[in-house]
Amino acid sequence: MSRVYNFSAGPAVLPEEVLKEAAEEMLDYKECGMSVMEMSHRSADFQQIIDDAEADLRDLMGIPDNYKVLFLQGGASTQFAMIPMNFSKTKNGVADYIITGQWAKKAYQEAKKFINAKVVASSEDKTYSYIPDCSDLDIDDDADYVYICENNTIYGTKYKTLPNTKGKTLISDVSSCFLSEPIDVSKYGVIYGGVQKNVGPAGVVIAIIREDLIPTEELADVPTMLQYKTHADKGSMYNTPPCYNIYMCGKVFKWIKAQGGLQAMKEKNEAKAKVLYDFLDSSKLFKGTVVKEDRSLMNVPFVTGDKDLDAKFVAEAKAAGLVNLKGHRTVGGMRASIYNAMPIEGVQKLVEFMKKFEEENS
Amino acid sequence: MSRVYNFSAGPAVLPEEVLKEAAEEMLDYKECGMSVMEMSHRSADFQQIIDDAEADLRDLMGIPDNYKVLFLQGGASTQFAMIPMNFSKTKNGVADYIITGQWAKKAYQEAKKFINAKVVASSEDKTYSYIPDCSDLDIDDDADYVYICENNTIYGTKYKTLPNTKGKTLISDVSSCFLSEPIDVSKYGVIYGGVQKNVGPAGVVIAIIREDLIPTEELADVPTMLQYKTHADKGSMYNTPPCYNIYMCGKVFKWIKAQGGLQAMKEKNEAKAKVLYDFLDSSKLFKGTVVKEDRSLMNVPFVTGDKDLDAKFVAEAKAAGLVNLKGHRTVGGMRASIYNAMPIEGVQKLVEFMKKFEEENS
Repeated sequence: MSRVYNFSAGPAVLPEEVLKEAAEEMLDYKECGMSVMEMSHRSADFQQIIDDAEADLRDLMGIPDNYKVLFLQGGASTQFAMIPMNFSKTKNGVADYIITGQWAKKAYQEAKKFINAKVVASSEDKTYSYIPDCSDLDIDDDADYVYICENNTIYGTKYKTLPNTKGKTLISDVSSCFLSEPIDVSKYGVIYGGVQKNVGPAGVVIAIIREDLIPTEELADVPTMLQYKTHADKGSMYNTPPCYNIYMCGKVFKWIKAQGGLQAMKEKNEAKAKVLYDFLDSSKLFKGTVVKEDRSLMNVPFVTGDKDLDAKFVAEAKAAGLVNLKGHRTVGGMRASIYNAMPIEGVQKLVEFMKKFEEENS
Repeated sequence: MSRVYNFSAGPAVLPEEVLKEAAEEMLDYKECGMSVMEMSHRSADFQQIIDDAEADLRDLMGIPDNYKVLFLQGGASTQFAMIPMNFSKTKNGVADYIITGQWAKKAYQEAKKFINAKVVASSEDKTYSYIPDCSDLDIDDDADYVYICENNTIYGTKYKTLPNTKGKTLISDVSSCFLSEPIDVSKYGVIYGGVQKNVGPAGVVIAIIREDLIPTEELADVPTMLQYKTHADKGSMYNTPPCYNIYMCGKVFKWIKAQGGLQAMKEKNEAKAKVLYDFLDSSKLFKGTVVKEDRSLMNVPFVTGDKDLDAKFVAEAKAAGLVNLKGHRTVGGMRASIYNAMPIEGVQKLVEFMKKFEEENS
């Protein structure tokens, strides 16, 4: 067996140790005689799995006690509707969105179906290659929340400082920077993300919500499954959760703890990103597409400026075991996603390959 | 390693061969150098996985070309809202529900949030221990559909003939009898089910929908993710699907084909159920809770009539490697779920154990 270096933007590389454990436990989890896939979600064994996952996540992120941790389904795309329906529609019905990429824009467009969603800043003018100055935005006095997508998977940007929301609740989609570095949860009202980039197999969204934001009454015209209250009241087990996916997330949490936690992950991620960005800054052939100060540690888009050469690079890299480097169609060129589970050796191999390619093609 | 006989109502037993294959492929799927969990949903490898899964399901069930097959998230509980929102709210806003258990009732209660849902028959008067006569119901002239839950997991009943809907569209939740026997798809407008009983790991719902029922226009006030059109237009890949769960379902479809398809499954399931029902009909200690003609092939509730003895049975059975036999709290006693993946040896062992228990406790 030969594992490749997988630079996919998501679903993405998972820690090899985690996959090995999962394979070993597939037919018999901890001598209970069955797979986690076969286990009743109402069993003591599964309750322990989900409890441990939540406890480890709380520990890793330092989640305060007044925040709920929910394991949900339907992807970030379902959150795009749940957020305005739960946090604004029955309040002022106004929310402010900062548009730094396709996913923030989709969240905004979905919110407009239910509330008066407004754009207070955008970097669409330059293909989202930077994060707008958010130090003094025209936040609405009656905004129920301010919404951001904190790391932009497609464009490779990340907020280095959170927006000044002028006291309004901050809601952040952290899908592609989840657990990549320490954050101060108390600065957010809601943090949520699809797990399929840094945390586990697609099929779970984790939402971390300050309790006072969750509606205390049922919302009459909102589907039961789209009400955070439904899931908060039942410990994410109102109905059968995606048990196996949650189990895998739990394994990744334990792996991150074993790596030294989020501060250690940050240092590793910075070291990995530095290898690639330093090369991009010195290369005559390749160049990054993002304003330096807004560069993501997770997603690194780059181009040669020549479409045919880009395609040649992607094909030759694949043949060399460096896969999924094709950029998103809206940016073109290449993109290397270097999430937590990508070892530094993968990034070093990529840079070696880029150097060789540059020599051969200049 | 010692595998138990797992009579869980869901998530439930999966074929051992399928779990073994999954374990073997965990780190490297077909020499692509990565796990299916790590694979971009936009990759050719994953497209092949979902295409094969759909093709095998179409083949197994004989799904006509004018039906879409969708892989969705959120469980049956999300379908409870999607069904009235998509199939009735913008039409007549009236639908008829037949209540044969907790899940049909929940579907009805959720529908009432969005449309004028009516109960046209119910077996609630006798703890849902039978299927009502549905040959001549008072179906509304303007009903957009008639809704049933075809196999009732908790109560152990199943429709042996479909209701006379008087020409109205039939929508059926088949979660707990999915792929347990051949059905005539063309008799239904919509067939859907959570996969976590007969098909795969929790986290996927499969919906089989006659194309003409899917709204052709976007629904203004319905979340994008709750519109069947969204998923139908994008081959279930509007957003990242639960890839690994779909991959496992695909493996189970191939396993069922290798078993001989749905007619062979039906014969095996009938043989298994006969072993248990024949014993229940002859036992002086145990008795089934369901009217004979409405008995499910999948879920078999039974009681001793003595709560303490029931608890003793469940505990001793567990110690003997026959697990998850405790009945649902609304029925009490025991329930053996004997889905496709339960081998006949498991049912034989259960009956042997019941005989021994009866001798020891009479």
